This record gives sequence, C-alpha cells and structure tokens, in this order.
Amino acid sequence: MTEFSFFARTTDFSVAEIVSMTGAEPCEGADLSRRLTGIAPIDQAGAGDLSFVSEAKFAAALKSTQAGAVLTTERFAKHAPDGVTVLLARKPYDAFVTIARNIYSAALRPTSTFGTVGVSPGAMVHPSAQLADNVTVDPFAVIGPSARIGAGTLIGAHAVIGPGVRIGNDCAIGANCSVTSTHIGDRVIIHPGCDIGQDGFGYLLNPAGHTKVPQIGSVVIHDDVEIGSGTRIDRGGIRDTVIGEGTKIDNLCQIGHNCIVGRHCIIVAQSGLSGSVTLEDFVVLGPRTGIIPHTTVGKGAITAARSTVYGNVPAGEFWGGFPAKPKKQWLREVVALEQLAARARKKSADRPDET
Amino acid sequence: MTEFSFFARTTDFSVAEIVSMTGAEPCEGADLSRRLTGIAPIDQAGAGDLSFVSEAKFAAALKSTQAGAVLTTERFAKHAPDGVTVLLARKPYDAFVTIARNIYSAALRPTSTFGTVGVSPGAMVHPSAQLADNVTVDPFAVIGPSARIGAGTLIGAHAVIGPGVRIGNDCAIGANCSVTSTHIGDRVIIHPGCDIGQDGFGYLLNPAGHTKVPQIGSVVIHDDVEIGSGTRIDRGGIRDTVIGEGTKIDNLCQIGHNCIVGRHCIIVAQSGLSGSVTLEDFVVLGPRTGIIPHTTVGKGAITAARSTVYGNVPAGEFWGGFPAKPKKQWLREVVALEQLAARARKKSADRPDET
Amino acid sequence: MTEFSFFARTTDFSVAEIVSMTGAEPCEGADLSRRLTGIAPIDQAGAGDLSFVSEAKFAAALKSTQAGAVLTTERFAKHAPDGVTVLLARKPYDAFVTIARNIYSAALRPTSTFGTVGVSPGAMVHPSAQLADNVTVDPFAVIGPSARIGAGTLIGAHAVIGPGVRIGNDCAIGANCSVTSTHIGDRVIIHPGCDIGQDGFGYLLNPAGHTKVPQIGSVVIHDDVEIGSGTRIDRGGIRDTVIGEGTKIDNLCQIGHNCIVGRHCIIVAQSGLSGSVTLEDFVVLGPRTGIIPHTTVGKGAITAARSTVYGNVPAGEFWGGFPAKPKKQWLREVVALEQLAARARKKSADRPDET
Repeated sequence: MTEFSFFARTTDFSVAEIVSMTGAEPCEGADLSRRLTGIAPIDQAGAGDLSFVSEAKFAAALKSTQAGAVLTTERFAKHAPDGVTVLLARKPYDAFVTIARNIYSAALRPTSTFGTVGVSPGAMVHPSAQLADNVTVDPFAVIGPSARIGAGTLIGAHAVIGPGVRIGNDCAIGANCSVTSTHIGDRVIIHPGCDIGQDGFGYLLNPAGHTKVPQIGSVVIHDDVEIGSGTRIDRGGIRDTVIGEGTKIDNLCQIGHNCIVGRHCIIVAQSGLSGSVTLEDFVVLGPRTGIIPHTTVGKGAITAARSTVYGNVPAGEFWGGFPAKPKKQWLREVVALEQLAARARKKSADRPDET
Repeated sequence: MTEFSFFARTTDFSVAEIVSMTGAEPCEGADLSRRLTGIAPIDQAGAGDLSFVSEAKFAAALKSTQAGAVLTTERFAKHAPDGVTVLLARKPYDAFVTIARNIYSAALRPTSTFGTVGVSPGAMVHPSAQLADNVTVDPFAVIGPSARIGAGTLIGAHAVIGPGVRIGNDCAIGANCSVTSTHIGDRVIIHPGCDIGQDGFGYLLNPAGHTKVPQIGSVVIHDDVEIGSGTRIDRGGIRDTVIGEGTKIDNLCQIGHNCIVGRHCIIVAQSGLSGSVTLEDFVVLGPRTGIIPHTTVGKGAITAARSTVYGNVPAGEFWGGFPAKPKKQWLREVVALEQLAARARKKSADRPDET
Repeated sequence: MTEFSFFARTTDFSVAEIVSMTGAEPCEGADLSRRLTGIAPIDQAGAGDLSFVSEAKFAAALKSTQAGAVLTTERFAKHAPDGVTVLLARKPYDAFVTIARNIYSAALRPTSTFGTVGVSPGAMVHPSAQLADNVTVDPFAVIGPSARIGAGTLIGAHAVIGPGVRIGNDCAIGANCSVTSTHIGDRVIIHPGCDIGQDGFGYLLNPAGHTKVPQIGSVVIHDDVEIGSGTRIDRGGIRDTVIGEGTKIDNLCQIGHNCIVGRHCIIVAQSGLSGSVTLEDFVVLGPRTGIIPHTTVGKGAITAARSTVYGNVPAGEFWGGFPAKPKKQWLREVVALEQLAARARKKSADRPDET
C-alpha cells in the first residue's frame, strides 16, 4: 500500500498508458489494463503502486516486492516475482519520474499553507502595488510600494516583498522570505526562509573602524530558477547579482554580491559563492563547495563535495579538494598521503626503540 | 553577585539540599544551612552563588573566587579560599547542571515572546485546525487547515504550521519557523527560523533544463528532539525523512530528503547530511561535518569538526578529515605531511643554488 | 548611463567638489565644473558617471570607457580616452567610495519595506514596551513586554523583539529577525532573517538520553556592529555572548554560546565559532572559517577561506588550512603533497608492469 503522503493524487494510469508515456516495453504476460494509482519505493510498494529498480542494491528488495508494476532494466527484470508487471526501460528512474510528476502534479509547486484564495484579509498590500490576476497572497504577507506581482503567483505567509520589486507569472515565494531590490522572472520557486536582495558585504577596512560601501546594485533572477530554503542572495555593489535561467540552488547557500550564475546550474546545499564569482552555464557544485572572490567556473564544470575553489576551473572539468584541483590529481594526492603515513608508521614500528 | 539574566530564578537551595540532590560530599566545616540563590561562573560568582571547577584552567580563578559554594573534585578542592563551602563531586559539572536546571527551570523551554495566554488575537488559526487544551499561539502565527496541535504546545510568533501537520504535546515551535508535511511527537523544541518539510532537492539533470522530481514524502520528528535555529529539514522524496527520539540538532544544519537520523544523536552546528544518509543511534557529528548521499554512520560513531564523510563509518569509531577516515590515521597523515614539507624545506635550504 | 538602481541619488558633485572631498589630483585639462550625477563600473559608466580603475584587469575597459570622470592611479591614467576627466588618487577605490557614500547615502542603512512612518497599524507592540521618538515599526513586527527601543531605530516587518530586550538608537533590525535575551547598542544593523539570543547548544551526554543545560546568559552587541542575513548568535550559558564595537559579520554565520568577539573584527560568510571562542580585536576570518570550542584568535590575526582552527592563533599571524597553521607552512604542505603525488605517478608510469 502506498505510504501516507501530504499530497493528493490527481490521476492514475493503466499499464498501457505508462507504456505509451514512457516508451517502456512490457515484459511477456503483462496485463496492460492493470491500473496503477500510486508510486512507492520497491520495498514499500503495494498492488496499486508503480515502483522502479535501477541499481543492484535494490535487486534483493525486488525479489520480494508487492508492487503492482516495476520499471527496471533487463539486468534486474528476472528478479521480479510472479504477478508483478515488469516494464523494461533504458532509464527506469527517468520513466518513473515521468509518471510520478503526473500522479502527484500538486507536489511540483508550493501552494498556500492556509488554503487562501486571492489576497488573505490578514495580508498587507500597499495601495501602489500592482497584483495581476489570480495572485494568491497568504496571511500576513507584506507587499511594499510599487511592487508588481505577475499572474498566478503565490506570495507565502509572512513573506516581505520590498518596494519596486517585480515578480513574474506563476512564481511561488515561500513563507518568511524577504525579497528586496530584486527582479524575478516567470515560474521561479523560492522556498521558505530565503532572503534575497539585502546588502552585499562591502567595507573599506580601516584601523579606526571599517567604512561601509553602499550596495546599489540589484538581484536579477531569470525564469525557472528554484531556490532552496534558507539561501541568501545579496544584491550587487555597483553591478547586479544575476541567477541564470533554469538554475537550481539548494538550501542554505550563500551567493555574494556581483555573482553571475549562468543558465541551468546546480548548486547543492550549504555551498558559498564569495563576491564577484562567475559560474558559466551548466555548472554543478557539489555540497559545501566554497569559491573565493573573482573566480570563474567554466561551462559544465563539476565540483566534488566540499571543494574549495581558489582559482578558475576550466570548462568541462571535474575538480575536488582543498584547494580544489582536477579530481584525478586530488585523488592521487589523497592516496599518496595515505601511503606516506603508512610507510612512516611501518618504519617507526620497525624501530620500536625510537618511538 | 550573580550576573544579570533574562530568566527568573524559580527556587533556591540550602547546601544540605544540594548535597542531597547531587550526592556531593561536603568538605569539613561546610555550613549545611547556607542558602544558594543563584549560579555563576567561578570568576563572577558572589556569596549567594553556586559555582563549579572541573578543569585545571579554572584552578587559579578558584583561589580568588567569592562564590558561596563550589562543586569540584578532590584535586582542586585545596585551592578554595576560606569561607567558600566546598562540595566534592565525581562530576562537578553534572552536579552543577542538576542544580542549575532547578533554579532556572524557566530557561529549559522557550516561552511566549509576547506574554501571550492562549491564542493571540493577532494569530490566524484555520477553522478546521484542532488545538488541544492549554496551547499558546503567539501573534501572527498561522495554523493551516486540519493541523492538530497537542496540549501545552507553544506556537511562536510568525510561525507557519501547514495543512494537516500534527504536533504533539508540550512542544515549542520558534518564531518565524515554517513546518509543512510534517508529523512531530511530544516535547519537541524547534528554535526560531527553522524550515521543516519543504521540497527535497531532486531533479533529473538534462541538457535542455532540469526536470523537478516531485517530493511526496513527509518529515517525521520523534519525541524529545531539539532543533537549533536556522536548521533545514527537507521532506522525503518517496520515503520519509526521520529524526529519531531524543536527537539534538544545532543551528544552521541541513538534513536532506530521505535521511534517517537515529535516536539520541548529536549534530553540531552547520553540519550537512545529503540525501538518503543514515545515522544510527547515538552518533555524534562534530561541527561542520558533511556527509555525502547514501552513506551510513554506525551506532555511536563520532566525527571530528569539519569531517567530510565519503563512505560508511563503522559503529563506535571516531573519524575525522577530508575525506574522513579513522581519527588516528587522519592525524598520522597530518603529521606525515608536516614532516614531508619540513624535510623539503630543509633540503631546499641546504641547496640554495637550486631554489 | 548609470544602471538602474533601487536607490535614489541624494546629491551630485562637480569635479572640483570631488577633488576637494577626496584629495584626488585632476589631470591636465580637467573640466572642474563638470557635474557627476551617478557612479558606475568602468565598463558600464556613462557621461554623467564617476568610475574608478585600480587594478590592471580593468585597464582594457578604461581604454573604451564612456565615463564622465575616472579615479585612478598614475599607472593607468594614460589609458583613459580623450574627454574623460582623470583624477589621480593613491587609493582610487577609497576615493570612489567616499563619493558613492554621499550620492547614495540612502543605501547605507536599511529602510522600511512598506514606507511606514511611525508604528504600522499592523504591528503589535506590548503596552509595557517603551519606544523612543522617531522609531519606525514595520507591519506585523512584534515588540514584547518591557522591551525598549531607542530613537531613530527601525524594526522590520515580522521582526520579533523579545521581553526585556534593549535596542539603542539608530539601529535597523531586518525583516523576519528574532531577537531575545539581548542588549544592543547604537547604530547596529541586523539584516533580515537573523536569530539572536536563542539557547546555546548545551547538553550532558548520557546513554539514557541527553540532559539539556539551561542557558541563562545574554547576548550583548556593541555599537556599530553589522550582522548579515541568516546569521545566528546564541545567548551564553552562564556567561554572555559578546560582539564588540564595529565588528562586521557576513551572512549565515554561527556564533556559539559564550563567544567573545572583539572590536572591529570581520567575519566572512558561513563561518562558524563554536562555544566559548574568543576573537581579539581586528581579527579577520575568511569565508567558511570554523573554530573549535575554547580557542582564541589573537589581535589582528587573519584566516584564509575555509580554515579550520583547532588551536590558538597568535596575534597578527595569517593562518590557513585544515587543521589551520601559519599560511606559509600550509602552502608549503600543499606544494609538498602535490610533488609527492607527481613523483609517485612518474614512478608508476616508469614501471608499467606494476600498475
């Protein structure tokens, strides 16, 4: 049986429909009229659920699954018990996600936490703000002077939209966010507790006390960006801070002033970009990556978890380490140091009188 | 004299009562009827205060303390000036905390920031939400449709409790938190500015733009958990994210989707668990520990500050480093590298013509 | 033409006035009566803008700039096109900031996000709280019992000021902040989404479950401190947590209980101070620096990005690495390890039969 979910299922599918939507190939004897009403992991799935297996570590669970249908590859198909409809796919997880996105379409975009329709009577919208049709404003949200909110956009509870901010269509701004000095495109999702557009960190250091540098730039967030909970994006100093189209940023990341993040980048949790960092398109930063100021990461480059980038990363390369370097070189150094310490230990064990 | 505190003292104790509550042994000549009304560090304590000394670095301060009574070990007792009541305890700090918890019982659990009794007229509680007896709801809190709040629980100012969320008895949800798609047990404390239950970070990466994977799981937080300010816990993808009974999480931590955190774990500040990480019971993660996806840390294992865990950690082991390994091995590598660099430096100094 | 900015310009200057305010020296033929109405980066500046060039990498942009006037050094002055007024300064950026602070004085301190004058009717101020003259309270802010707010201070939307908190004059507390158990001096800026004064992370670890240690100290923030968005400062256990005058803290930092941060320190984003850390005056912590408990960083010491400080740092030194050590030693180790791995690789390449 499908686990409890906070999200309603909006549709269900026959095996025939799944085949048609995903291009999967039904194994011999598959009941094409069988209906799947839910999705579940292979070890928890019930007779009404679609599941998937794409890695060897789930092959054992496949043997005892009670799923109604399973998307998998030829390699694992033979493990499926009798009575389970097996659908062969080159990328079983991708096919599974295609179906999941349809069954749980309501989970693809945050909705009102209060069931609000229109503007909550508890919200405060400045008379000079402009709200397009079909905007939802949750309780206690604050929309400042001259802000403009596009059609279909949700402003979450306690979100603060500053003066002159523009937000496009079909966006969702999470609870307790503050957004100032920012222009946002369409279909942007910002999860709860983000702050966007506050001052960058700029001072002239001085023995008599540090002098604040005014931060007069903006933040520009292009279409289809998604920003995880607790992430901070500072506005630019005299340039803008820019997040390119389709980029996805995870929780608790820091984007400093004047950063230019390209299109379709992935920035995993707790990563930090110092000021004036450039990420070209399709960069992937592993979790807790840190990048020092005025550094460029080239198109399609990848960093391993907890990389510390002290210099430019060429396009297409995979880097890791502290300081970060090409991954292979980094791993050679990890191994070389292990061997060095092991030799030193052996040597010292060979001469116990010296220890 | 006791320093200023924002917290009221709820009781005071005679030396005899302290002896009875802690099992400490009074030194010769102790005045058992003396009353202690406060607690303070050894260098700041006055005649009405109980203090403690358990480490050599505080022995000097003990010599000149003005405390009324001091919990300490035999090793340091001789340093106490005349007139200070000395109480011997095997674990002086533990004994001190026992008394502190009684004198400052009001500091053990967050209270209303507005002195609210019942539901603030400024809060917004959905008609379909169910509040048990003795619930406190601070100004501008939002409690969504069908949410259920247990007896004695405090919902802080501006906290947002989403649709269908269940919170047990005697919990405290801090100001500016958002809690969605979550079930919470009893006596759970969540400090201000946490976001619990938002989407996990899941996409199919794609050269044409990344496809969002719906996140339909929940967050389950068991009894007696405490969560520090600014921490984020994402809901599961198709499983749940689970925090086990009695686990304590510090500030600004990231718990990714599908993580299973065991019972009575300690996760120190700014640590990050990627998706599908398992911590078994009684794990202790030092500050800024990072763990990559699909990794397991065994029962009772410990990580040093800023460990980066790239593989499973066996139960009971103490690991550190980047990538993390058994602590002794890590420290041997630190020393081996230091020696290598020192040798290289000496060599280069010996051959100045080559540098 | 100057880029769009959310901030209004409050004044403009003639070249003669800029010369007089900054001590810059006009090059031959400079039109002292020319008026500059804005500021911009060298590649975006128009005829009404003042710009600056202080680094070689911007020399090329200087050659084709359309700026009205440029502050630069003798080294780069010759690259300026005809028609651009060149002003020579020893520190061009400092001179530029002096002018920028005047033209954009409104950007030096956060203002109401709702255009509020006085106390918003949507705010909730406890009858026992005391507000001095000219306090601005934005919508839905909560000011608790007996709190005192100094003249000219801004309390942002949804900020929560707890019971008994004192805030001085001319401060700005950002949207969605919570401030409890805290005393704040004058001219302090706290950016949105900070939590100040919640419980420190203190437990007695115990196989039967961990015992919470009451946290009865306060947070004390001295004059002219600035705190970045999302930063957390926990109140002390039995001492206070103290932030010294003029210290600037960036986004998403963690300051544990009982820390003593000196005067005019700089703490860059995502850094973390464990409990009972001391920073002496004028310390600079690079981004993502972590410091373990009970450690002291001496006066004027500096740490490189992602340093992990495991022991006391002497005054005036520059440290880096994991564990952190004097920067030169750290870099020697980085190089020594690179060379070791390169030698190992060469050796293995020389003996292909062994690989």
